[in-house]
Amino acid sequence: MATFRLDLEYDGHGFEGWQVQPGGRRTVQGALEQALQRVTGQRVRVVGAGRTDAGVHAEGQVASVACETHLDPDRLRRALNGVLPADVAVTACAAVSEGFHARYRARAKLYRYAIWNGESPSPLRAARFHWVPGRLDLGALRAAAALLVGSHDFACFRATGSATRSTRRTLTRLEVRGRPRGEVLLLLEGDGFLRHMVRILAGTLIEVGLGRRAAASLPALLATRDRRRAGRTLPAQALTLLRVSY
Amino acid sequence: MATFRLDLEYDGHGFEGWQVQPGGRRTVQGALEQALQRVTGQRVRVVGAGRTDAGVHAEGQVASVACETHLDPDRLRRALNGVLPADVAVTACAAVSEGFHARYRARAKLYRYAIWNGESPSPLRAARFHWVPGRLDLGALRAAAALLVGSHDFACFRATGSATRSTRRTLTRLEVRGRPRGEVLLLLEGDGFLRHMVRILAGTLIEVGLGRRAAASLPALLATRDRRRAGRTLPAQALTLLRVSY
Repeated sequence: MATFRLDLEYDGHGFEGWQVQPGGRRTVQGALEQALQRVTGQRVRVVGAGRTDAGVHAEGQVASVACETHLDPDRLRRALNGVLPADVAVTACAAVSEGFHARYRARAKLYRYAIWNGESPSPLRAARFHWVPGRLDLGALRAAAALLVGSHDFACFRATGSATRSTRRTLTRLEVRGRPRGEVLLLLEGDGFLRHMVRILAGTLIEVGLGRRAAASLPALLATRDRRRAGRTLPAQALTLLRVSY
Repeated sequence: MATFRLDLEYDGHGFEGWQVQPGGRRTVQGALEQALQRVTGQRVRVVGAGRTDAGVHAEGQVASVACETHLDPDRLRRALNGVLPADVAVTACAAVSEGFHARYRARAKLYRYAIWNGESPSPLRAARFHWVPGRLDLGALRAAAALLVGSHDFACFRATGSATRSTRRTLTRLEVRGRPRGEVLLLLEGDGFLRHMVRILAGTLIEVGLGRRAAASLPALLATRDRRRAGRTLPAQALTLLRVSY
């Protein structure tokens, strides 16, 4: 029995998220487990570092799997890519020690939320960016972002109905890149994210960038722990899991 | 009657190319003429700088149109974007002199052919890049590209069956950007392009980059004027019209 680390890229558009679900909906985990079964002949369970939601993309998702195979890692990568559907690919495959667990061993995840701030919609960006037509004040966005970096109770940025024991998380980075009237990228890195946390954070920060909410109001917002006080959940198609660190 | 220059961006995936065709197929020109009719109430004919093929994208297509409207250019742009489908947008609109003709006045067009040279397929690039898995020799590609710059008879790089009077064109730029095992972009600028010329040029250059054809053989290839001697026509989805110069 060997353990492998699989690095994955996928276009989230055609998937109901990462995790296998009852009812046979199309998921990334399901596609990967089917491909592994075709290549190794075994039914195996794959663990993903981040359980991305429906529509969310990944450039650097990481999965771990234990299976029997005579293939070396590079041949396994190519064999999997030969049977996987076109919207998911294994970009790297490595043999790792038995104890490697893609989720439990993950130290940090880096996400990108991509905004198109042009005056006109951008058809070539429509599948990967969220369009915000009003001119963004990046100074205000950065001031608000700085107030969110650190260890906080992020309960107000969690989807209602999700049951997580602790809502305390540490954001180590919340960087605003780009320029007004162009592409504006939010880069968020942390030890873990609550359900919809990045998309609600992005929705709240955009309100600051549009002058509808003061940057200085964010600490008080965090203190309310009230989802209804935060901004709206922005669409999934502009969110990408870029990297998982171990 | 006012004349407008419209700058357009579109995702070519859902269009049967630029030009209105018999049989009611979906075209960019048709979508734009419908939008103009809804906004101005007039049936107008739009002229495009380049008649892009089915599946080809544009970041900077230019169209000209003469119509009656009380809207200033910026309001016209917004009104058109309000009724256009999501895969085409007017990125700029300007009032121009009556003699402006998007095609006849165009001095040069800049196209990009995008290649993904990774060892694994890239799902997030699949809709805009052509995957070449073998490692490309960019030095050989650049040597071949340099031999094609200038005024030549490009008959061997023209789709068979297309009836153009002259097959002489001037390529002012054929630049190879990027790196092996990453994104490799071919930038081609010239006074005009024959049918499928960029895609056949790209297919021929890729053979050079893979060591299947010598860079030095290109002048002799041009001299044959024989389409069958050139490389294959690469897929449309990796081709984008970037800019038209006047």
